Amino acid sequence: MKIAGVQCNVRFKEVSANVTAIQETLRETSQQGTQLTVFPECSVTGYCFNSKEEAFEVAQRIPGPATERIAETCNETNQHAIVGMVERDGEELYNAAVLIGPDGVVASYRKVHLPFLGLDRFASPGNRAFDVAVADETKVAMLICYDASFPEAARCVSLLGADLITLPTNWPPGSECAAASAIACRALENGVYFIAVNRVGEERGFRFIGRSQICDPSGRIMHMASESEEEIFYAEIDLERARRKHIIRVPGQHEIHRFADRRPEMYGALTKPHGLAKPGRSNN
Amino acid sequence: MKIAGVQCNVRFKEVSANVTAIQETLRETSQQGTQLTVFPECSVTGYCFNSKEEAFEVAQRIPGPATERIAETCNETNQHAIVGMVERDGEELYNAAVLIGPDGVVASYRKVHLPFLGLDRFASPGNRAFDVAVADETKVAMLICYDASFPEAARCVSLLGADLITLPTNWPPGSECAAASAIACRALENGVYFIAVNRVGEERGFRFIGRSQICDPSGRIMHMASESEEEIFYAEIDLERARRKHIIRVPGQHEIHRFADRRPEMYGALTKPHGLAKPGRSNN
Repeated sequence: MKIAGVQCNVRFKEVSANVTAIQETLRETSQQGTQLTVFPECSVTGYCFNSKEEAFEVAQRIPGPATERIAETCNETNQHAIVGMVERDGEELYNAAVLIGPDGVVASYRKVHLPFLGLDRFASPGNRAFDVAVADETKVAMLICYDASFPEAARCVSLLGADLITLPTNWPPGSECAAASAIACRALENGVYFIAVNRVGEERGFRFIGRSQICDPSGRIMHMASESEEEIFYAEIDLERARRKHIIRVPGQHEIHRFADRRPEMYGALTKPHGLAKPGRSNN
Repeated sequence: MKIAGVQCNVRFKEVSANVTAIQETLRETSQQGTQLTVFPECSVTGYCFNSKEEAFEVAQRIPGPATERIAETCNETNQHAIVGMVERDGEELYNAAVLIGPDGVVASYRKVHLPFLGLDRFASPGNRAFDVAVADETKVAMLICYDASFPEAARCVSLLGADLITLPTNWPPGSECAAASAIACRALENGVYFIAVNRVGEERGFRFIGRSQICDPSGRIMHMASESEEEIFYAEIDLERARRKHIIRVPGQHEIHRFADRRPEMYGALTKPHGLAKPGRSNN
């Protein structure tokens, strides 16, 4: 499978213009034979809202008019897209990623790990179990931004069979070390492909640091984009490599298995409630 | 706390000579005001055994004569040491790390994650829960080599309060990507200091790739040693930084908490038995 990552700027609250830009980019990546194109977090709506009310104005239903327009272009170009948006569901908002294919929405994901206090403060924490979806024959998982700082997230989707983890993100300054090591490490420890697609540009004085990247199942960085320029990058996903968890270095002497070598019976601490309080979420 | 990492070669099966070298190094690091000196995996015994019988010949009891000799030097130099050895307990062998202080053995750890098939094939998998011990005022955890490829291990000891994770290791060729990203990522995701101390040199044709390193709680690599040279490196551990899991980037706007932002209720998959078979362990 050929995939593309689109490191781009986004127009704050201009949903229609953002969807048009996504459609144009999908036509461009399909010219390169791409089967899946990944866009940044909140690439449909923008991200730096000052109040829940303001976020509500542009929040999207899934499926909804924005996903339908993107699905039309996926149909026309015979590919899949992953885009980010503030999602509206009743009175709740979520920071969501959506996998859209030629026939419409395939799956959506609601960001599980929200910063203690941050630009996600008007969103509710993701309330659905980690999951994988299928695009062509590839098992694709979606995580969002800060999720990558929690190894538990990538591990859960990898245990569910993910070949490729996608991470639409809005990394701000302060995320340089995460960009430098976390994506490669997640790919390595799970033996999967991992693509992180960040924004560039600024929104309400909040800057994004680029460095979008794709890493292969050995933890090698296949490509890292610049810190500040828009860029489309491409990579080939080798499903056989992503599914080979048993890695033979010297037959009978040095072999590892990314999953069979785990010791789940030793990990009880990971699922215990920690009882650490988080500040209440603001409603305005 | 000032710590040292000792990237060195080891004499295969020459326990007494290795202990003497450890003692000499402890005298050297104490001259620099070091309070904890970390040596590689199996730095007392060597690693590349061809049979369980051969490993048994040099395997050590803990505590035992080797740890007692090292404790004498810890007492003389008023510091702690972490060394690695094949441990003998009844008929079982373990790949162990030992924290030794001025009064003797403080704690020991048995490698939990063993390669599917590898040079640890004569050792039994670690059978004790992850734990932390105290050296001076620092909460120190021990993991060994391949454990670093499993985020669950570092996470468990971090949740137990580790300030510093130590990883005596014997990274072979093929571990370059792990050395490049995993240690920094573990430090970052847990907000702890993480020191990995590898060997250099060769044992029975099996080469070690150096790259010992220490990373700070932001995931910054404070020091990385060379690929092939012996070296002692030093770092200061700031306990306040290791314990500050709440990181304020822009007050009230962008704050994270490494532990409170976790979602343990979503991680059930991590502790499920996976049912993947491993090859039987050889007894000879």
